[in-house]
Amino acid sequence: MRKKIEKIVLIGAGNLATQLGLQLFKKGFCISQVYSRTEYPAKTLATKINAGYTVSLSEIDPEADLYICALKDDALPGIVDLLSHVKGIVVHTAGSVEMSIFEGKMLHYGVFYPLQTFSKNRNVDFTHIPVFIEANNPDTAQCLKEAAFCLSEKVYEANSAQRKMLHLSAVFACNFVNHLYTLSGEIAKEAGFDFKILLPLIDETAQKVHHLKPLEAQTGPAVRYDKTVMEKHLSLLSSRPEYQQIYRLLSDSIHKTI
Amino acid sequence: MRKKIEKIVLIGAGNLATQLGLQLFKKGFCISQVYSRTEYPAKTLATKINAGYTVSLSEIDPEADLYICALKDDALPGIVDLLSHVKGIVVHTAGSVEMSIFEGKMLHYGVFYPLQTFSKNRNVDFTHIPVFIEANNPDTAQCLKEAAFCLSEKVYEANSAQRKMLHLSAVFACNFVNHLYTLSGEIAKEAGFDFKILLPLIDETAQKVHHLKPLEAQTGPAVRYDKTVMEKHLSLLSSRPEYQQIYRLLSDSIHKTI
Repeated sequence: MRKKIEKIVLIGAGNLATQLGLQLFKKGFCISQVYSRTEYPAKTLATKINAGYTVSLSEIDPEADLYICALKDDALPGIVDLLSHVKGIVVHTAGSVEMSIFEGKMLHYGVFYPLQTFSKNRNVDFTHIPVFIEANNPDTAQCLKEAAFCLSEKVYEANSAQRKMLHLSAVFACNFVNHLYTLSGEIAKEAGFDFKILLPLIDETAQKVHHLKPLEAQTGPAVRYDKTVMEKHLSLLSSRPEYQQIYRLLSDSIHKTI
Repeated sequence: MRKKIEKIVLIGAGNLATQLGLQLFKKGFCISQVYSRTEYPAKTLATKINAGYTVSLSEIDPEADLYICALKDDALPGIVDLLSHVKGIVVHTAGSVEMSIFEGKMLHYGVFYPLQTFSKNRNVDFTHIPVFIEANNPDTAQCLKEAAFCLSEKVYEANSAQRKMLHLSAVFACNFVNHLYTLSGEIAKEAGFDFKILLPLIDETAQKVHHLKPLEAQTGPAVRYDKTVMEKHLSLLSSRPEYQQIYRLLSDSIHKTI
């Protein structure tokens, strides 16, 4: 029989656990407990969301409706066995970890994966963040979806294979993009300007793909394979062979895609 | 003797010429004429900004205070000789072209380089767009800066060497970033989801670097050199060797930078 999710335990107190905890609390869920291996992060988060906290897995509240394991990927397997006694739904939030890590260990389990980049000290609005749900049975899926819809307008089902691809696409759209910001900042610095000079360009580049497909929005020397400009650019990077390699590879890739 | 810029001729009717024309017109400058090799773009832009237009360089208004050559890099040298009779200031808008292309051809010249990505049909607010000015003498520089300050709060002087580096940094922050958007969209599609699912992540990735340095904002498997996740990702890309190459190169670069 399906039960509505009311009482939640957060396993983890990192970036995602913090943002998720704050948001669930704001939306009226009862967060009964925060677990972390160390006291400070557990206490810090617990204080903000009116929860208890513990650093001992044996003290975890066994009566919650939902246990959200928002931990580093490699910490997940170690947690699973220690939660096998709980009756509520157990989920993890990891893009690259299969739901099957819970198989045979508990009755109701799944995945709750918000596609976003989180920092502890930067509050995000969950309304537009896509949340991808997977569950081991339809009732559990329904429960998780209802909870997810309390946070976000965009809730989807996605199996483990889909979620892994989504996580990979996020590495390109976020982690790699951010790294290009770092490199562009280093180059601007060489011109005598601060990274901040690039912010209007960065914003517009992101805004543009709300209205055009990225392929249609593509501009720059590589689109027209302008060898003169590209050779000039490569020679400007002569003291940075690594940047040259990235320049060549991405320019070739743009040219092949267009 | 320095003269205030009032009357402007636009040489070019492409993305930048269009956005610059619209903005100058809005700010009260008189655009007397638009030149383009073909009639349709010249007429289209001229109509919007109450200007005349021509497709013949010999008919260009010789009485303007400023001639803005917003053309493709390789079209610039061909234009310079044909403008040598004008008395006003002649500028180009190209990141990678030296100011010296005007040398010995005219008295007052310079560069007016807005660091932004432009599309014809997407109006941008110039207020925060950094504009980089170079000129062959202090009076001309002052004139150009005054005009630039009418459009933007952020006006800087930058010589040709600095401007080339800025243009290169923009290739990383805009062109390459946009290409990663394309690739991430292809990967999301393989998971069965549309590119649009990535927009909140893309927005937050861009917003984050307003508050944190990109190096501090860096997240993802490459930061912690999480080999397990990275190997999984590479195997998901087995049918796309080019994406694998980009994944490897950028992950290694992130790891070396952190």
